[in-house]
Amino acid sequence: VTHAYLIVGDIGGTNTRLAVVGSSGDGLSESRRFHNADFGSFGQLLSKYLADIQVSSAAAISLAVAGVTSGRVVQLTNHPWSIDRDELSKAANVSNVLFTNDLQALGLSLAHARSAPAVPLTDHGAGQNLAPRLVIGVGTGFNAALVTQDSESERPMVNAAECGHMTLAIETAQELRLRDFLARGRGRASVERALSGAGLVEIYQWVAGDIGPAGVELTGPEIAQQAVSNGDPACREAAAILLKLLARTAGDLALAFLPRGGIYFAGSVARALAPLIPSVGFLDEFVAKGRQTELMRSFPLFLMPDDSAALLGCVVHAHDQVKHMEQAT
Amino acid sequence: VTHAYLIVGDIGGTNTRLAVVGSSGDGLSESRRFHNADFGSFGQLLSKYLADIQVSSAAAISLAVAGVTSGRVVQLTNHPWSIDRDELSKAANVSNVLFTNDLQALGLSLAHARSAPAVPLTDHGAGQNLAPRLVIGVGTGFNAALVTQDSESERPMVNAAECGHMTLAIETAQELRLRDFLARGRGRASVERALSGAGLVEIYQWVAGDIGPAGVELTGPEIAQQAVSNGDPACREAAAILLKLLARTAGDLALAFLPRGGIYFAGSVARALAPLIPSVGFLDEFVAKGRQTELMRSFPLFLMPDDSAALLGCVVHAHDQVKHMEQAT
Repeated sequence: VTHAYLIVGDIGGTNTRLAVVGSSGDGLSESRRFHNADFGSFGQLLSKYLADIQVSSAAAISLAVAGVTSGRVVQLTNHPWSIDRDELSKAANVSNVLFTNDLQALGLSLAHARSAPAVPLTDHGAGQNLAPRLVIGVGTGFNAALVTQDSESERPMVNAAECGHMTLAIETAQELRLRDFLARGRGRASVERALSGAGLVEIYQWVAGDIGPAGVELTGPEIAQQAVSNGDPACREAAAILLKLLARTAGDLALAFLPRGGIYFAGSVARALAPLIPSVGFLDEFVAKGRQTELMRSFPLFLMPDDSAALLGCVVHAHDQVKHMEQAT
Repeated sequence: VTHAYLIVGDIGGTNTRLAVVGSSGDGLSESRRFHNADFGSFGQLLSKYLADIQVSSAAAISLAVAGVTSGRVVQLTNHPWSIDRDELSKAANVSNVLFTNDLQALGLSLAHARSAPAVPLTDHGAGQNLAPRLVIGVGTGFNAALVTQDSESERPMVNAAECGHMTLAIETAQELRLRDFLARGRGRASVERALSGAGLVEIYQWVAGDIGPAGVELTGPEIAQQAVSNGDPACREAAAILLKLLARTAGDLALAFLPRGGIYFAGSVARALAPLIPSVGFLDEFVAKGRQTELMRSFPLFLMPDDSAALLGCVVHAHDQVKHMEQAT
């Protein structure tokens, strides 16, 4: 290939995934993952990818970005990169540069036929057809996005949000001590200070310092692996605390958005800790909203197991934009 | 009058307001307020009103209710009444009985020409035209509703929510003690446990017990009046605590809904305490979301001063339903 129809990308706070979509179908090919830290800019990373796959130009590139994507210049939320639409278009020889928020892309992927089916965490069966669905992403950062569908066209619409910056919901003296640990040097603890990969590491350090000699240096994936395999008790306790706070936060967001079509958990941290959900009282915490407990029981919960879901959302976004442009002319 | 075109009502947890709308215009007439506690059912209250104003039948009644309004039988959230659509239709000789959630009615009132103009609490001027707006009601209970408008028809759409049951956002040891006081006998403290008329009374009792001899018995309106007139210091402190928690909660909801058209505070508690907003650090607390402080500064805040706003929303709802029925036939 020297000219590609569509390039899709998922630019997270730590890694970037890129893939090519052929003009005839929706399948992803040439999917590659890069560490952001290995590159000075997204432009350099993209050039490396295009050289690797021997593509010299593309009709369009559709990118999912953890950040606000409304302006010409997109600033990543959890990474120093900013990306200029016009510069990228010139430098990479791509006519159309499209951005969507990473959570919006996950939401749009629910409408993509090739998305891996969501794994039910409750026994509701599928959610109400066309009812609003809430995608909650727990990875480098935290966010949520409501997905609604037009009743006639079934066109999916995804609302942007910045839920990771909401106040961390604490209820006990122990949780207040954790909150103060997470807030040190910052004055406040947001939701994503706990509900993220870095949050898992910090909660582990707090637990380890709390229950015995200071913990060894472990990464988020190592802590998750220890927790799931029932290894280090501090790892398991840290994972249980994170999941309890996640269940409470997801319940709060369910009350705000009433997603009768279900809640879909996505992101590396949610996927890694999902095996613990049945054993840590996750569902009990999710429904613990006083008089609204029955309402809470009505929301089906799912796990999105596919870590290329955001890329499929980029495909939906690109097709949707093209349709929109065609309708306008 | 013996036959009315449209009767509108706002059934709160404590009081009910009713009014008549003429067929030619949108003006409210015969507006009356009733204490729910004086009647065994809403049907009795409505019969009293119809007898008072000498109306024997009506084409439609459009009611705003603090509760979930999707089924045939509507259960009030903060009052034991339930209201059966069919029974009410027969008993009151009204062909069409329409329900909308009270917060949805407040949201719809933003589209009503006769609504009193909202009072700006920030110096942003008006919000972006047609951008989503969030109405936050603080009265007998707490709730919020996002109001969006279709870009072509400008038809307002209001999302239902149950934000009053979200976890109360606390951050300090003092607030944890207040949370435990509010949660006593219940196991948890929801947002509306603090952010409501009953919440103001409970916060006052906690403050009074905390800073000196137990407070005298005061009602919510009395506490608000003392606070605003700079009377009893415990009342003022209680109002300051409630407003701080309200500012934080409103900020959290702004991050969830990104209401670029502005946040509109409504309800008896918001109206009563609004004069204190400039002096208690409300705006500082609202924007205190770490890296998102600049985003927070972009949201215009308003007070809805008109306590008949929900009734006007009922008018919008009725007209919208009639249009919809006409289009469907």
